[in-house]
Amino acid sequence: MTEHIVSSYDEELKNLAVKLTRMGGLAEKLLTDSIVALHTSDQDLALRTIEADEQIDELEHEVEEAAILMIAKRQPMAVDLREIIAAIKISSELERIGDMAKNIAKRAVAIQSEIIAQRAILGIDHMSRIASEQLKDVLDSFAQRDVDKAMAVWHRDSEIDAMYTSIFRELLTYMMEDPRSITYSTHLLFAAKNIERIGDHATNIAEMVFYLVKGEPLREQRPKGDTSSFTPADYPQSDD
Amino acid sequence: MTEHIVSSYDEELKNLAVKLTRMGGLAEKLLTDSIVALHTSDQDLALRTIEADEQIDELEHEVEEAAILMIAKRQPMAVDLREIIAAIKISSELERIGDMAKNIAKRAVAIQSEIIAQRAILGIDHMSRIASEQLKDVLDSFAQRDVDKAMAVWHRDSEIDAMYTSIFRELLTYMMEDPRSITYSTHLLFAAKNIERIGDHATNIAEMVFYLVKGEPLREQRPKGDTSSFTPADYPQSDD
Repeated sequence: MTEHIVSSYDEELKNLAVKLTRMGGLAEKLLTDSIVALHTSDQDLALRTIEADEQIDELEHEVEEAAILMIAKRQPMAVDLREIIAAIKISSELERIGDMAKNIAKRAVAIQSEIIAQRAILGIDHMSRIASEQLKDVLDSFAQRDVDKAMAVWHRDSEIDAMYTSIFRELLTYMMEDPRSITYSTHLLFAAKNIERIGDHATNIAEMVFYLVKGEPLREQRPKGDTSSFTPADYPQSDD
Repeated sequence: MTEHIVSSYDEELKNLAVKLTRMGGLAEKLLTDSIVALHTSDQDLALRTIEADEQIDELEHEVEEAAILMIAKRQPMAVDLREIIAAIKISSELERIGDMAKNIAKRAVAIQSEIIAQRAILGIDHMSRIASEQLKDVLDSFAQRDVDKAMAVWHRDSEIDAMYTSIFRELLTYMMEDPRSITYSTHLLFAAKNIERIGDHATNIAEMVFYLVKGEPLREQRPKGDTSSFTPADYPQSDD
């Protein structure tokens, strides 16, 4: 009956995966809530979102501790180690996604009292939906070790980049037309940038899934929907 | 004579540290070069900086591979494991610092042909010098396991945040005064944001050094020089 007391390696791995799933679910919720707070100027929701980010930070710490203890106790071989190291790295990406959502919530607090361009918010809303789907899909791809699904996420990131470019251009137009819109447009610009970065973190996770399954890093250059990197015009840059 | 063939654990650890030092040196150089490129509108330098970032990415991969092989071969205990995991995490922070410098270089390409506000560039220049010192100091603190030095970096980050706030405000003023400055001001805004994030990555490394030496995470809240997080005015937000 010892198997009821001594957990198996597989159980410990499953335990790590459960924590990652919880982190992913939380990150998704934070992103959704931050966008709703931005959309509806709901300051309470924004503040709750900012606070809730701490739970993700705590979970990241738990994943790392559990992973280190697991390595120390189980002395796994290189192939299994990669699995555990991947869990640490994915939890770090999810922690950053939580930070991005927190940043958006902070912007929601900052612009709550101003009349904002609903059209621009709609674009951000749409962008965040895709980012949320990407996050969900990439976590599924990790859980199922599904390289095709991971690669679909990887390719779709250019869609988010392209939307970011379009929102950036739109916001610049507002700023030029009406200087009073400069402050809130700048906040929305950073909110859009945060969503674009969430897409990048999902893409990072997709590359880790590829590496885990294939045993070698993805060497392809990322496709960029934001083709404006070197254009000295009113375009944003595709940041990393 | 086997010690000449079979490397010791300490040698392998030293080898990891050497790679991290090289990464740190490269990251510092990329940051400096990107700011010079921005300052002097040197497009060649900007493009070389963008390319050079690949070397950092490659080194990150090498650190991770070496670390995983080391764990698999040496089966270290928890305390030593923390050391090796820290190396992986620090290399990931350095890789992101390289990305930030690359982003700044991309902005340099984008605004090269425009007349830009030299005053704003001066602020960014100053900010980047402090970020560069922070990076150097935190890498020293890691090499020497010097918690005091790490904590000095940790506390000084608020200085960078405060400078960012001031540059943000200045750039918004330019935008409001002259709509023609909106495009390049926005690029400079993102450049400043990238430097601010480099400061954050240095702070992350400082927290890792604390954790490594003290054996427990730093629980203090980060000091924020950017006190404007919840001010619905012409201030930036303190992002994470």
